Amino acid sequence: MLVAGVDVGSVATKVAVIDGDKTYCRLAPTGWSPRDAGLRTFRELMADLGVSEKQVDFVVGTGYGRISLSFVHKAVTEITCHARGAAHMVPGSAAVIDVGGQDSKVIKIDHRGRVLDFIMNDKCAAGTGRFLQVTAAALGADVSELADLARGKKPVHLSSMCAVFAESEVIGLLAAGRDKGEIVAGLHRSIARRIASMVQRLGLVDRITFTGGVARNEDLRLCLEAELGAEVVVPEQCQMAGAVGAALIARDQVEGKAQWLS
Amino acid sequence: MLVAGVDVGSVATKVAVIDGDKTYCRLAPTGWSPRDAGLRTFRELMADLGVSEKQVDFVVGTGYGRISLSFVHKAVTEITCHARGAAHMVPGSAAVIDVGGQDSKVIKIDHRGRVLDFIMNDKCAAGTGRFLQVTAAALGADVSELADLARGKKPVHLSSMCAVFAESEVIGLLAAGRDKGEIVAGLHRSIARRIASMVQRLGLVDRITFTGGVARNEDLRLCLEAELGAEVVVPEQCQMAGAVGAALIARDQVEGKAQWLS
Ligand code: SF4
Repeated sequence: MLVAGVDVGSVATKVAVIDGDKTYCRLAPTGWSPRDAGLRTFRELMADLGVSEKQVDFVVGTGYGRISLSFVHKAVTEITCHARGAAHMVPGSAAVIDVGGQDSKVIKIDHRGRVLDFIMNDKCAAGTGRFLQVTAAALGADVSELADLARGKKPVHLSSMCAVFAESEVIGLLAAGRDKGEIVAGLHRSIARRIASMVQRLGLVDRITFTGGVARNEDLRLCLEAELGAEVVVPEQCQMAGAVGAALIARDQVEGKAQWLS
Repeated sequence: MLVAGVDVGSVATKVAVIDGDKTYCRLAPTGWSPRDAGLRTFRELMADLGVSEKQVDFVVGTGYGRISLSFVHKAVTEITCHARGAAHMVPGSAAVIDVGGQDSKVIKIDHRGRVLDFIMNDKCAAGTGRFLQVTAAALGADVSELADLARGKKPVHLSSMCAVFAESEVIGLLAAGRDKGEIVAGLHRSIARRIASMVQRLGLVDRITFTGGVARNEDLRLCLEAELGAEVVVPEQCQMAGAVGAALIARDQVEGKAQWLS
């Protein structure tokens, strides 16, 4: 049996294919068209694996672009898919923090990866990957360099939570001669606090899994641990949780085990 | 008697001098140092008027930079000063909407310009001048051109309230070939809605005065009128309300009429 999950996010499109006990993944930028990105990335992975689309038994689409995917058999919300994927990647997770390019979500899950409760923010750029992107640009840095810049540095105090005001504040701090790394450490603490407050609103205390592109930032993971006073685990394929979850849900559909999908 | 008000805002510094029944004003960019901007702008206006600083009986400082002004006799919050200045400029005002570079405030006032209630936003760039600055930059336009661009245009629907997300949305709309003027009209409607909701939270319905740098934007004034279903009056010297209010409060001090100042 071959099943696939396609997760079209605002920044990156992720595809996972499950073939027996093997999982294959592909990630590509979404660009202007979610529909094209979804189909193109799916076909590229198919070509890599040397299988034809017709051999795939079931495809589940998820992410903000899921509505525009005509080739999927079913569209499932990203909350459901992320929960399922993260529970599979880190067995025993009680919570998933997913920080993407334009949203952040905290999901409380049971041992099978079913959603018990969640909080989602997609209205305010603070607390999402965009906060880091905007402020890193003001520092002349790339998002991928932030963890290295901040390592071991004492965070500066930032008074602005808003991404726009924090950007100006960063420019002011640079002009005042503050160390870049200390500013980045301050940015990490600021975003970690915002995410930690979402986690606390759900009453979550341990077994926390951190996914999404932003989870690659090791300094931010450490900041989250400090804010939460708990271990925060980042799975190796942290950006693939939604796509893997979607593929697992596709497999359930084929196996007739999808009764709990709402 | 000579009295002065110095209003150091995040973007512009304003000084007003009252000499009998005459009022003189000066406006300059704040730049990096609120303290320098306050003192420099005050001295420039003194030099223009050909009076020495010692001849000024009382100086009141206001605005976010008021704390750093060592030459003023008293610092008063901008809410109190704006209320007083706007009531003086537009007699009979029941409410003041002030939209500055980095904040927005709605103040309910009595006929003497005393504050009855207020709402202030300085945490989120949406609903402040920064929203227009950030999104205008994405359009390759200057804030001063926005009113002309939007005149008579049908506003596009913008789904993002957040300044950061609206900026991306604007870039996407431009890429999709939408008319610049219609996008600007959409931005005006978006910010007008946010400000109107503050006005409505205070239960205000008419005699509304609109001040601050952003009040120069005639299309935005019309949008506010449409959202509020009420006339919105912009005084000629709309950016000077805080400084003029501070100077009037300075005069009260000298005349011993300041008992109501809290
Ligand atoms: S606080 Fe800043 S980042 Fe958040 S919605 Fe407002 S403008 Fe956007």
